[in-house]
Parts: sequence; C-alpha cells; structure tokens
Amino acid sequence: MEKVRVIEIKKSVFAENEIQADDVRKALKEKGCYLLNVMSSPGAGKTTTLTQLINILKNKYKIGVMEADIDSDVDALTIAKKTGVKSIQLHTGGMCHLDAEMTKQGLDNLELNGLDLAILENVGNLVCPAEFDTGAVKSVMILSVPEGHDKPMKYPLIFQVCDLVIINKIDVLPYFDFNMDLCREWVLKRNPNAQIIPICAKTGEGVDKVAEWLEKEIENWKVN
Amino acid sequence: MEKVRVIEIKKSVFAENEIQADDVRKALKEKGCYLLNVMSSPGAGKTTTLTQLINILKNKYKIGVMEADIDSDVDALTIAKKTGVKSIQLHTGGMCHLDAEMTKQGLDNLELNGLDLAILENVGNLVCPAEFDTGAVKSVMILSVPEGHDKPMKYPLIFQVCDLVIINKIDVLPYFDFNMDLCREWVLKRNPNAQIIPICAKTGEGVDKVAEWLEKEIENWKVN
Repeated sequence: MEKVRVIEIKKSVFAENEIQADDVRKALKEKGCYLLNVMSSPGAGKTTTLTQLINILKNKYKIGVMEADIDSDVDALTIAKKTGVKSIQLHTGGMCHLDAEMTKQGLDNLELNGLDLAILENVGNLVCPAEFDTGAVKSVMILSVPEGHDKPMKYPLIFQVCDLVIINKIDVLPYFDFNMDLCREWVLKRNPNAQIIPICAKTGEGVDKVAEWLEKEIENWKVN
Repeated sequence: MEKVRVIEIKKSVFAENEIQADDVRKALKEKGCYLLNVMSSPGAGKTTTLTQLINILKNKYKIGVMEADIDSDVDALTIAKKTGVKSIQLHTGGMCHLDAEMTKQGLDNLELNGLDLAILENVGNLVCPAEFDTGAVKSVMILSVPEGHDKPMKYPLIFQVCDLVIINKIDVLPYFDFNMDLCREWVLKRNPNAQIIPICAKTGEGVDKVAEWLEKEIENWKVN
C-alpha cells in the first residue's frame, strides 16, 4: 500500500514538472535564449566538453552556464576560469537530478536578458535526470568510451530523450574493448532520430561538429 | 507546499526501508549467509570485478549473484557463463536503485539455504543507491580511473556509506590525469575507515586483495 501511494505522488510530481518545464521554455522563447541540457555518467567529460564548446562559440553568442552538483564548486570555477563566461554552481542538496523548478531558479540567477545560450550541466547520473524535463530546448548526453558500448541497452530512457549523443574520449579507443559500430547501432535502436558525434574533449577533436549542430539549433530557435 | 509533502513521504520511505533492511540482515545471519552490496557508476567494471572475485572464491564458498539493471539480462548471463555460479537478473522497472524489499525478493529467488555468499550488483549510479540500505552486511563501491580522482568531492554519500573502495582500471593510469594519492586523501576525508584497494579487473591484478578482505568478512560474519 505504501508503495502505491509513493508511485501516485511520483506521477503528480512528473505532471507538475512538465507544466513548469513548458513555462521555462516559453520564458526562454520570449527572451530569445536557447537552453541546452547536458547529461552523462559521473566523469564522462561534461565539463571538459563544455569548456571546448564554449570557447568555439563565445565570440558569436553571449553564453551562461549552470553547473549542477550534489556538492563542491569545482566545475563552475573551471568553466569560469577556462572560458570567461558567467558560470554559476547549483547545489542540489543531495538530489540526483534537476527538475524544471530548480532550472528556473538557476536561470533567474544567470539573468536571461541578452543571453543567447544557457547551458545546464546536469548531475552525473544516467537514470534520474532522464526522467525530468528541465525546460531545455534540447538535451545532449555524453557517453565516454571507458563506460562501454553496451550502455544504450542498460540505460534506455536517457538515450530515448536525447537529441544528440556525444561519444567522448575517443583518444583511448585503443585501450578499451569499445565497438563504435555496435554502439551507433544500439543508440539508433533506442532513438532513430539521435545525432551521434564522436569527440575527444581533452584535445578538442570533433567538438567543432558539436558547435555546428548547436549553432543551427540556436538559429532555428531564434527564428521559429 | 508540494515539495514539503514529497520530502516527508521520502523520509517515511527511508524509515520503512531501514526496518526492512534490518530484517534482511537478521534472516541472512540465521542462514549463515553474507550479503555484499556492490555499487559504482555505469561502466566502472562491477561485472568484470565480480567475475574475477568469484573465480577466486567459488571453490571455498557457495556463491549466488543478483544482477540489478533497469533493462537487459547481459550481466547475469556473463556471470553465469564465466563463473558457473547461480546468477539471477533483477529488473528494477526504471528504478535507479535497489531497496531492502527488492533485495529480499532477489534473495528469495536465489535460495539462501547453504549459500555462504550472496552478491548484489546494484544499478550503475553514484547517487541513489547510496541512500537505500539494501540489507547487505557491507557495501563496496568501485571507482574507475577514467572517471577521475575528484569523485569523492562530488558524490560524498556513496563514499561515506562504503566499507571498501575499489579503484579499478589501473592499467589505463598512463592515459588519464588521475592522481592516486589525491584520490586516497579525498576518499579518507569522506570516510576515515574506508579500505582502498586499486585493481585491474580486466587482468585480475589486485583482485586477490579484495578476495582476502571478503574472506575475513565472511568468516567474521559466520562467527560473531
């Protein structure tokens, strides 16, 4: 009985979150700001990828970053130091994901006026962040080579809700049993519309293709 | 208001889970069976570590394994094929962790009679599994080198609740900026009583030390 009650409340939390997420997107649209949600396992390379990506785009767009973590401020400091863009840290207080309300609080602190691109680095976790619409225009997930090519089989939802799958750490491909073709096949099985871009965030290889994808996205969001 | 209501219910879920976890431990004690809970990020090497560990211990102890995943049966099949011990797959139905009730269901399917060691491979996630006592005697977490040495700063709870921290994939240390000394320091800052054992699950290096630790644990559990 206890279990049924929890599930019902979870459903109402989801429903309420979706309404709030649509409100976030409406506010972003009015301000002409694009919000990108970035998800991955712990240590897959979100912060390093964002650093490279922002350094490509920061002269063209005004960018702000929200770094979500359970604890520590290291990621926001890294982004600020290595890119110079405004970066704030969101502490989730033990929560395993961000929801639309938490994202809204973050955006209020970033100040949307004049901002072209806001980026949300979600908590490192392949399960819970996939369940909550943050209000972002699109979602990206980063899978790193050391995690293995079988992750789309084991964590289906995150691959289903992502528009772009970045495969990071391709520099260490020779040292891991990672089958890129099989990985692509399994990602597309979960999500036939997913874009897939292999990169090495450490050296910057392939990040230009992510920047191209994001530029098209931003221009499209501003016009339509 | 909605938020407060959710938090209150979460608390009651935790309290109820703790009672169930103690019941699980009591039943294990009566049967003389030791339960080990194994946690990590996705792709950190839980299944490979367990395969090596079981092959060291299987002639001395009767072992059973529960593989928890959101989807797929690959891990249970891998364990069964590579070790020959009884292995069952637990599908969590989208859930990001196991609780004591789900563990109990798994143990009922494993059949505790005559079993010396039951191993629970939790869902790949550094956040939620740390919040739920499964009823295990002890918990182990596996941190892999590619994830980075900063994880104890970012995911404090999982390091606090673990008795043993295994640092896996030490074969790729030359290709990553992983500071082993700093990692040890940060693990011990979160948990001064934690044991730390570096291994390479792929080659088996260091797994004998994990086996030694576990043997002592099992013998102690049987006697005391």
